[in-house]
Amino acid sequence: MIRIGSAWRAPLRAAPLVRARTFSSTSVRASLWKSRWVRYPVYGLGSLAFSATAVLGGLLIYDSMTYHRVLVTDTDTSLERACEWGGPANRPILSRANAPPADGRPPKERLVIVGGGWGAVSLLKSLDPDVYEVTLVSPTNYFLFTPLLPAVAVGTVGVRSVTESLRRLLARTRGQFVQGAAVNVHPHESLDRHTLQAMDGARGLLEVELISPQWDGSADGERKPSDTSVMYVPYDKLVIAVGSVTNNHGATGLEHAFRLKTVRDAQRLRKQLLENFEMASLPTTSDEERKRLLSFVVCGGGPTGVELAAEIHDMIEEDVYKNYPSIVEREAQVHVLQNETHILNTYAEAISKFAEQRFRSEDVDVVTNAQVTQIHPDGVSFEQFNPLTGEKFMRTIPSGCTVWSVGVTMNDFTRRLSTTLPNQGHRHALKVDSQLRVLGTEPGTVYAVGDASTLDSDLKGYIFGHLDRFDKDKDGELTLAEFTQLIKVLRLKFPIANEQLQGIKPLFEKYDFDKNERLCANELAEMIADATKNMTSYPPTAQIASQEGKYLAHKLNRYASLRARDALPRDAEDLDEAIHKPFVFRSLGSIAYLGNAAAFELPIPGPFKTLFGGLIAMYAWRSVYLSEMVSLRTRVLVLGDYIKRSLWGRDVLWL
Amino acid sequence: MIRIGSAWRAPLRAAPLVRARTFSSTSVRASLWKSRWVRYPVYGLGSLAFSATAVLGGLLIYDSMTYHRVLVTDTDTSLERACEWGGPANRPILSRANAPPADGRPPKERLVIVGGGWGAVSLLKSLDPDVYEVTLVSPTNYFLFTPLLPAVAVGTVGVRSVTESLRRLLARTRGQFVQGAAVNVHPHESLDRHTLQAMDGARGLLEVELISPQWDGSADGERKPSDTSVMYVPYDKLVIAVGSVTNNHGATGLEHAFRLKTVRDAQRLRKQLLENFEMASLPTTSDEERKRLLSFVVCGGGPTGVELAAEIHDMIEEDVYKNYPSIVEREAQVHVLQNETHILNTYAEAISKFAEQRFRSEDVDVVTNAQVTQIHPDGVSFEQFNPLTGEKFMRTIPSGCTVWSVGVTMNDFTRRLSTTLPNQGHRHALKVDSQLRVLGTEPGTVYAVGDASTLDSDLKGYIFGHLDRFDKDKDGELTLAEFTQLIKVLRLKFPIANEQLQGIKPLFEKYDFDKNERLCANELAEMIADATKNMTSYPPTAQIASQEGKYLAHKLNRYASLRARDALPRDAEDLDEAIHKPFVFRSLGSIAYLGNAAAFELPIPGPFKTLFGGLIAMYAWRSVYLSEMVSLRTRVLVLGDYIKRSLWGRDVLWL
Repeated sequence: MIRIGSAWRAPLRAAPLVRARTFSSTSVRASLWKSRWVRYPVYGLGSLAFSATAVLGGLLIYDSMTYHRVLVTDTDTSLERACEWGGPANRPILSRANAPPADGRPPKERLVIVGGGWGAVSLLKSLDPDVYEVTLVSPTNYFLFTPLLPAVAVGTVGVRSVTESLRRLLARTRGQFVQGAAVNVHPHESLDRHTLQAMDGARGLLEVELISPQWDGSADGERKPSDTSVMYVPYDKLVIAVGSVTNNHGATGLEHAFRLKTVRDAQRLRKQLLENFEMASLPTTSDEERKRLLSFVVCGGGPTGVELAAEIHDMIEEDVYKNYPSIVEREAQVHVLQNETHILNTYAEAISKFAEQRFRSEDVDVVTNAQVTQIHPDGVSFEQFNPLTGEKFMRTIPSGCTVWSVGVTMNDFTRRLSTTLPNQGHRHALKVDSQLRVLGTEPGTVYAVGDASTLDSDLKGYIFGHLDRFDKDKDGELTLAEFTQLIKVLRLKFPIANEQLQGIKPLFEKYDFDKNERLCANELAEMIADATKNMTSYPPTAQIASQEGKYLAHKLNRYASLRARDALPRDAEDLDEAIHKPFVFRSLGSIAYLGNAAAFELPIPGPFKTLFGGLIAMYAWRSVYLSEMVSLRTRVLVLGDYIKRSLWGRDVLWL
Repeated sequence: MIRIGSAWRAPLRAAPLVRARTFSSTSVRASLWKSRWVRYPVYGLGSLAFSATAVLGGLLIYDSMTYHRVLVTDTDTSLERACEWGGPANRPILSRANAPPADGRPPKERLVIVGGGWGAVSLLKSLDPDVYEVTLVSPTNYFLFTPLLPAVAVGTVGVRSVTESLRRLLARTRGQFVQGAAVNVHPHESLDRHTLQAMDGARGLLEVELISPQWDGSADGERKPSDTSVMYVPYDKLVIAVGSVTNNHGATGLEHAFRLKTVRDAQRLRKQLLENFEMASLPTTSDEERKRLLSFVVCGGGPTGVELAAEIHDMIEEDVYKNYPSIVEREAQVHVLQNETHILNTYAEAISKFAEQRFRSEDVDVVTNAQVTQIHPDGVSFEQFNPLTGEKFMRTIPSGCTVWSVGVTMNDFTRRLSTTLPNQGHRHALKVDSQLRVLGTEPGTVYAVGDASTLDSDLKGYIFGHLDRFDKDKDGELTLAEFTQLIKVLRLKFPIANEQLQGIKPLFEKYDFDKNERLCANELAEMIADATKNMTSYPPTAQIASQEGKYLAHKLNRYASLRARDALPRDAEDLDEAIHKPFVFRSLGSIAYLGNAAAFELPIPGPFKTLFGGLIAMYAWRSVYLSEMVSLRTRVLVLGDYIKRSLWGRDVLWL
């Protein structure tokens, strides 16, 4: 029974002179209690009090049991054990973590995954836990939920809320962790006999530069070689998932710009943003300098650039404004420079327009058709193209903080591979076939996923390299039957060209210009040229890296299970193709944050292909990201950060 | 009325064939419902569900109203306004934020507070909001809850949970904020006529070095002068609350040690701790190097050192162990080096003993009587004294991470003041009188609180400087009446000597060696020497800084209110003494964290003077700190961090 009113009663009892009123007030209380307007709120408050007590009490009891050594360990990822030395530089070669099985079965294959981003983690999560000896090599010991990096850069969410321990993610597969950056790959045929013995039958060695305490965590080239040491990790299967670095796109002076690829980038950027306001508010700062300090230039009108511009604008309006209303009002300005005609140009036109209109109404300056040529310490120069007059002219805008968010390219490791391997030559990524095998490597050993890879689209090279095989009658031309066979193989080898290779008969008739019922080399070349022109390679997004990782996990699972049952097809021309279908990307749509608004592009035709709106869309956008996170921990922490922002705003401290 | 069971009922209704059973299962449900074992848990879960919905729904609605510019600003602390230039270096002199009152009343006095720690914040919180024009000068724009810094260093709580915006704390008094480090004080008599005009009647100028974006946040001397610029802040009243820096106590090689005074220190230390485990786990690391990497040496057995050692030990046992069980088991070792006979030697003996016994059982190595002489990059050398044999011998222990936590001393600013002002000369702090006025400055203008200050204990200097005043009959000796007068004044001027100056008559008789009923100079000198010997100066703690700040706020409030009513005593010999009693420290006790245990020393005699114990004491320790925090925000965030640790452990990421 719930008892209320005792607090009311106490003073009445203490004052006998008013006892006469007690009775009536008791009956008033009784009748009050009958009213739902009294009873339900009391029930509600009682529920809240009970729940708070129950939850906090439960947590306290649980908490009191957590202060001791945890004996069930996640995973002993220590690599401290005896190693043979060898390899080109005579350095330690990581030995197997476990002794081979006693029953004479072949030991598990060694799967080495390089990188700790979307591709690697999605692969890890879908991999059968017991079929490989897994080693993960990553320069950071955490996975970063990159889509929220713009939010981290302004303090909407905390950096520890969007990172998850790679060791924890690795625990399921009882894998080992090497904190280091991959430098090179040495296939077994290039190694001397001693090394081959030491690596115990592996298909090659991955050369790893161990990360030193002095390393500052940036992705590209700020490591000091003298502080690092080298180690070799033997692999039977190697998965390259190292991601990408920022591309300079022909601009100079990038050392004066911030990037937004790593945690460190976000931390540095946040500090600079806050410092600029502090500096601008000083009486020693000139008006011109103040204008410069409060001009924030984002180069790049893609999703990251747009989201960052939106987040910076949010931070200024919702938090910074409180401390410096006058200077924010007068001077603060966010600029977005985009080299295309619209921002978010990879999205549907309706979304681009919505974003531009939204930015206009929020007073974010969007400059389109602007090709950045140089970044100065105090400004950005760009060539602007006027689409009406066709004129080009140079402009320079002052900038207190420039962020470069334009495209991606290979890091040192993948660039080294790309130049040494045959059949490569893409400018920004490693070319892989439709089975995600890196071109030019021994089939079934080296795979690449995510930003580090791009699906090979060289139809021409393939067709003319294999024309003999399809031209059964050796007349130098293809009949419809021969052409049908060719297209079927092409669809398997180049799933990205599927759309262009629909309708075999119409295609054959379209390009059979002389109507001789055969396609000669010229006619074939014409067809290939047209198909290639309309093909678009997959964008470097978390979504595709995730799908590639998952695809590869399934294939590797299947391979290992067939191998364990000794059921691998023996005479297959192409083992990968024989056991698994090629990779095809299925878009789940795109989303973009636009400053207390959001836009969604769904992979469906019709009126609901694009959706956008204000706060409700923003909440939907947050829900999508919360559901995409890799662990419950990060979900709870990010939700907590949203609540924190709501109650106390973003903190604007120099930490 | 609560309705349950409708979900069960629905499928039954949809299936008429089993209607016959409906009755009996309804009655089973009804009788189940009568059982309290069913009803109460359902009520409980219902309450939880209702509460969760209500709280989250409420938050969501509130949240949706926070996405806009906040028009009621905390405080416009921007300093951007026209300033005269002047002063010794001809730099801007900050002008008044507000125009003088139109009704001809004198404008408010300008109160300048230097520093953003315990003393400054406690002063700010107790200051009447409308009586001064407040300017806060601090190199960081946040207040740091220093007692939890050891916990921050290992990730038990987050750094943003123990910091609070100084601007937010300043908002109540509508003060201004200058982000900079104080360099010097120029009293008005040293300044030229032009400057005096520009500073509008102020008592002096505070020279401030504005903090540049390049500054790394450390407390001592890593600023680059070329990146800074200088400004003058005029004051009518100046409060120095700049705290202290670490003291080297005669050891060399301190550049190889971490400290634990600032946020940056804690962040660096955390990174180093985690990196050492990572390095130690590599196969390229030799056994000797591994031993070194996992040896953590804390120099200093005071509260900070002990708490840090305990926290490091907690982190290793509860979190790091999971990832590296074998090397932690075999090699990890925390050492505490203490130059006294016991750790926590300022606490009661029972607490020291409990702490030592606790550390012994937890396998933390406590080395007492160890005077550190040199810190090497890879170890610590110290001279150990054996109290049994009286021998001294040198030892060196390898160290992968050395933390220096031994005493405090003046920073550059206070040292500069200390050397230029008369009557100073303390080695580690500015001497202040019992009204907290800095000795050697114009009375009523410059005050100091917290670690930066120490109460003057020079009884001898005072007595022999003022003997004439007390020796009314000018015979060179003091009668009992004269002596009584002297002691009364001494108690007022030197409250720290109160204990030693109890019982005037017995004191007089004790030192009247020749029993001539008069104290001659020698007898007086003897008395002073004895009293001074037993006096202990207040320790540099948050508690005393807080009390000093509050005391000063009350005095400044009283001064301003008297001044506003034009009621200041006109002919007072000493205005401060005339309007307010001297500062006396009242200890509230001490607490110390000892690794999932805690000890309390209460300011009461008897058996409850010392309390210590395990987890329950730890929860009490946490409660004390939660209640001592400066804002609800930090309380909630720290509580959240404790829950986070409980659920997912400390994160061991290199962030």
